[in-house]
Amino acid sequence: MDLATIIGLVLGVGCVVYGMMIGGDMGLFYDQSSIFITVGGTIAATVMSFPLKTLLSMPSALKNAFIRKPIDMNKDIDMIIDIANVARKEGLLALEDAANSVKDPFLKKGIMLMVDGSDPELVKSVLETELSYIEARHAVSIDFMMTMSSFGPAFGMIGTLIGLIQMLSNLEDPSTLGSGMSVALITTFYGSCLANMICTPLGKKLRIVSGEEILQRELLMEGLLSIQDGENPRIIRDKLTSFISRKEAMKGGKADVARPSAAEARE
Amino acid sequence: MDLATIIGLVLGVGCVVYGMMIGGDMGLFYDQSSIFITVGGTIAATVMSFPLKTLLSMPSALKNAFIRKPIDMNKDIDMIIDIANVARKEGLLALEDAANSVKDPFLKKGIMLMVDGSDPELVKSVLETELSYIEARHAVSIDFMMTMSSFGPAFGMIGTLIGLIQMLSNLEDPSTLGSGMSVALITTFYGSCLANMICTPLGKKLRIVSGEEILQRELLMEGLLSIQDGENPRIIRDKLTSFISRKEAMKGGKADVARPSAAEARE
Amino acid sequence: MDLATIIGLVLGVGCVVYGMMIGGDMGLFYDQSSIFITVGGTIAATVMSFPLKTLLSMPSALKNAFIRKPIDMNKDIDMIIDIANVARKEGLLALEDAANSVKDPFLKKGIMLMVDGSDPELVKSVLETELSYIEARHAVSIDFMMTMSSFGPAFGMIGTLIGLIQMLSNLEDPSTLGSGMSVALITTFYGSCLANMICTPLGKKLRIVSGEEILQRELLMEGLLSIQDGENPRIIRDKLTSFISRKEAMKGGKADVARPSAAEARE
Amino acid sequence: MDLATIIGLVLGVGCVVYGMMIGGDMGLFYDQSSIFITVGGTIAATVMSFPLKTLLSMPSALKNAFIRKPIDMNKDIDMIIDIANVARKEGLLALEDAANSVKDPFLKKGIMLMVDGSDPELVKSVLETELSYIEARHAVSIDFMMTMSSFGPAFGMIGTLIGLIQMLSNLEDPSTLGSGMSVALITTFYGSCLANMICTPLGKKLRIVSGEEILQRELLMEGLLSIQDGENPRIIRDKLTSFISRKEAMKGGKADVARPSAAEARE
Amino acid sequence: MDLATIIGLVLGVGCVVYGMMIGGDMGLFYDQSSIFITVGGTIAATVMSFPLKTLLSMPSALKNAFIRKPIDMNKDIDMIIDIANVARKEGLLALEDAANSVKDPFLKKGIMLMVDGSDPELVKSVLETELSYIEARHAVSIDFMMTMSSFGPAFGMIGTLIGLIQMLSNLEDPSTLGSGMSVALITTFYGSCLANMICTPLGKKLRIVSGEEILQRELLMEGLLSIQDGENPRIIRDKLTSFISRKEAMKGGKADVARPSAAEARE
Repeated sequence: MDLATIIGLVLGVGCVVYGMMIGGDMGLFYDQSSIFITVGGTIAATVMSFPLKTLLSMPSALKNAFIRKPIDMNKDIDMIIDIANVARKEGLLALEDAANSVKDPFLKKGIMLMVDGSDPELVKSVLETELSYIEARHAVSIDFMMTMSSFGPAFGMIGTLIGLIQMLSNLEDPSTLGSGMSVALITTFYGSCLANMICTPLGKKLRIVSGEEILQRELLMEGLLSIQDGENPRIIRDKLTSFISRKEAMKGGKADVARPSAAEARE
Repeated sequence: MDLATIIGLVLGVGCVVYGMMIGGDMGLFYDQSSIFITVGGTIAATVMSFPLKTLLSMPSALKNAFIRKPIDMNKDIDMIIDIANVARKEGLLALEDAANSVKDPFLKKGIMLMVDGSDPELVKSVLETELSYIEARHAVSIDFMMTMSSFGPAFGMIGTLIGLIQMLSNLEDPSTLGSGMSVALITTFYGSCLANMICTPLGKKLRIVSGEEILQRELLMEGLLSIQDGENPRIIRDKLTSFISRKEAMKGGKADVARPSAAEARE
Repeated sequence: MDLATIIGLVLGVGCVVYGMMIGGDMGLFYDQSSIFITVGGTIAATVMSFPLKTLLSMPSALKNAFIRKPIDMNKDIDMIIDIANVARKEGLLALEDAANSVKDPFLKKGIMLMVDGSDPELVKSVLETELSYIEARHAVSIDFMMTMSSFGPAFGMIGTLIGLIQMLSNLEDPSTLGSGMSVALITTFYGSCLANMICTPLGKKLRIVSGEEILQRELLMEGLLSIQDGENPRIIRDKLTSFISRKEAMKGGKADVARPSAAEARE
Repeated sequence: MDLATIIGLVLGVGCVVYGMMIGGDMGLFYDQSSIFITVGGTIAATVMSFPLKTLLSMPSALKNAFIRKPIDMNKDIDMIIDIANVARKEGLLALEDAANSVKDPFLKKGIMLMVDGSDPELVKSVLETELSYIEARHAVSIDFMMTMSSFGPAFGMIGTLIGLIQMLSNLEDPSTLGSGMSVALITTFYGSCLANMICTPLGKKLRIVSGEEILQRELLMEGLLSIQDGENPRIIRDKLTSFISRKEAMKGGKADVARPSAAEARE
Repeated sequence: MDLATIIGLVLGVGCVVYGMMIGGDMGLFYDQSSIFITVGGTIAATVMSFPLKTLLSMPSALKNAFIRKPIDMNKDIDMIIDIANVARKEGLLALEDAANSVKDPFLKKGIMLMVDGSDPELVKSVLETELSYIEARHAVSIDFMMTMSSFGPAFGMIGTLIGLIQMLSNLEDPSTLGSGMSVALITTFYGSCLANMICTPLGKKLRIVSGEEILQRELLMEGLLSIQDGENPRIIRDKLTSFISRKEAMKGGKADVARPSAAEARE
């Protein structure tokens, strides 16, 4: 669970709804045709901008912004060290069992390549290619959210123009002017909320989640390559610990920088 | 047929028209002089911004966003493998027949160069130059759509200003104020729709279509160069399969990454 | 004559004027003080942003967007081949006569350097420097138009604010409200037209014209260097023909890519 | 104390409040639900865009923009020279005492690495990594402020739309129209003030403070590496003095450029 | 005197004031509290965004945009040639007298370094460092003007919101509505004028002035290094003349490109 996403969404909706309820009836803000124009139009224009497959991949991408487990790099490091110990004692071939118990497909593929006795250069190149594909996939999801975010207010304005044109062309009963304009503004309201309460924050969160996932995979890759290189598990742990500081820096928070060990000096 | 473009367009127009019909008479939204100002002005300003030839090339460029056949890389790979088998058994000269049955001019040119016994360096350089020209052509089409997309709302506002100036200068009969303003807003409505329902989504789709087409040509080029190099068809297939994962990543969707083969290790 | 610039301008003005005439009297849209504020202010702010010399160089820069002769690269290639034939038969010194009949100062300078027996490295470096200066000059003109394009709507709004402040502070006779606001909006109308019907399209056209001119000079430079190198005229023609494809790609149009010749292979 | 931040904030609030008081009652500008919508919504959307940890790190980041002591590089240089003198006379091991009296964790870590007898390459690489983490942390804080700055006016507009929709739908008593619209505009006012009086200036100030802090650490790093290299304290002082000119240039102010010494020539 | 800055400013103010006078009383546009909010707020927010020192350095930076003497590179070249002749006849040591009569601190520092017999590498590195500091100083001034330019309209809108909120909340006497709104719009008027008539043009002019000053220093540096190298004064003049063409290109104007001399060929 990404707490900030949930807290931010609940807090944002809460603040806006509270402000709405003080002023009067919530029913004012529901208008079916406005939903069609704003939400429907925004989704339609975004779908038109991307391949159909991008749309279908969005639910699993958004899951990342909401209910992903926090990445625990310490656990990843422990796992790499376990694998390193097995590899040291029983050889790389013994890792086949480890691969079977691993769920992460990236890590699994890396281990299987080592079990197959692939060349270290090949392992590195395959994992780097895999990483670049993961990054490209993330970039498309972020682009999708940001595109939606810019279509939202645009279709909000289109809806408001429709409402104003209809209202103004039919001013026989001036007493309806107010309520007509009120309805016309609802689409702009929907468009602004869609962009600023949902799409932009989710797009920005996806960018940060993507950065962390890429960093985690880099840690795993670094670990696997060190194992294949036959490095000492203690030294591998030293190396990988520095990734934790990097992750903290990406969040603006502090972490003790790992005490540099002799291992790094040797590099 | 690019389904997303069609679905997005139909869905978008449907949502907006449905929202319009709930509110009243569709005839309200038709105004001939507004079409002149907004659509005419936008097209005129865009034509002025580019050479005449760019305008003439747009219909065939836009066809790409709508009715292009989906790129089936598996078929491309099969075709390359067929050619590779012919080349292996009967030599490069025998490819002349293959070239005649090929429609794609890029692939045809590549095969003919090989038949002519051109140096591999030359084949590569000619095909890369060709690729860069294709990319430049695509970039101009995308720029054209995006330029139209920014002129649309601008001419919409010019039209609305014209309408407001005319209406406000002649307020003798206040009962016409509403309908005058209603007509004035129609140009802004046209401009927003032109930009957000047509030009921006098509521009973005063209960018993605361009990326896929370039990738397809890179696959073909990679294949041809491997054939000229006399590589084993099985190894060629392994190499080319990785392009499918790349294409999927560009859409945000997943594909199984090709199992790395010994072939890649040798590179 | 650049047809697209003329067509676009005439079409754009025509569409907008037609839309204006349907709605009423054209005289409504003429207001002397609005011209002072919008056009005068925009020009003043742009002049303030650049050196005086930039302003003075704009007429000849804009001529390029309107009445330049289309660049006929085939003619340029023929001319280079003619020069190459003279150089082959009578030696580089015989080119002095050719230089005298050439009007383009860039080409003339290049030929004179060769007649003087300058080192090929020097010829190349002088012509490349000259090219970079031409490019810098073009960039300043484009920047000038784009700066005007962003000041136009800004001074339009300043004028509208002036009009509104004057009108609102003096509402004793409400019947004048409409016409007062009408006049106030004229400056915004002027500013939008200035930006979207003139400055932005001309700036974009200048960018494309600049690209073509630079490409033409690169063709001439490539030709001259090949002549100095003593290459065969037939091979020089092959080389230079590829520039035509490049020019077409820059417009989004297609041209047959030159059949690669043995000459390129040798490079 | 960063005087410019305090002066700017006090002056800005003063000017705006003074302008408000001339026009009437300050109580007009307080509206509880507007605070909820604008400030609450802006914070919520920003929190949603970042990890929770970023939010928690903001107070200490903002402290930097307000109450940081001005960086006195002369004092830093004196301290480095003191350390250099100790190292010269008593050896690097004697620096352990110096490290204990040092508060800055960056400098402390550097000294401890030298005391441990680490390789100069390792010291440099550890300190550079540390610097890059500090820079990443700063970048996140700046991004946080700039994100808040763009959500502020957006939620201001959402609040105004809510107010307008409520007011317009309930126009039975036209005398309340004015005050209803007045309240509706308060959220836009809050959003603009939040963005332009607080978030944008603080974000820009944080960027400059970050630049200065990074420069100070570079000075310390340069000093430590020179000490480890056993350079003459007088030469070290010459080298470090040039950082003061660099700092002044970053502020637009002038400083005498250090007279170049023989030391630099030797590099 | 930079004529374009003065002409542009006088012309711009003239056009706008003329447009204002046609419409009525100039006194309408003076409002004390609006000045506080818009000008005061803009300055306050800009001060808050930068260190205090940047503010203090702005007067001398702006002097550059107004009353700087035009850079006469021919005179600079003559001066360099004079120095070169002295150095040739009497040796580098004799330049100490020349240094004393030179006012430009950059040139003076360069000559003194040569008199001191510094290594050419050191002279070059010191002057390049000095140049990079000058460039950084200019960049801060430009950033300051552009930041002011974006805060201007923002505080204008804040002021207008304040005015509207006060006016709308107190509509008992509808006859004051017009004049209240008129006053409210004055701040937006001030903000737009501040940004478009002063800050943006000055910022853009500073960028161009900066480019020319940097180019002049590069000419001086090139000259000094050639003198130290003992080159022939005639050849030095040839080299430096090419800077004049570069300067003209930066303004969009034409200058005859210097005839390339044998000197350049030797490089």
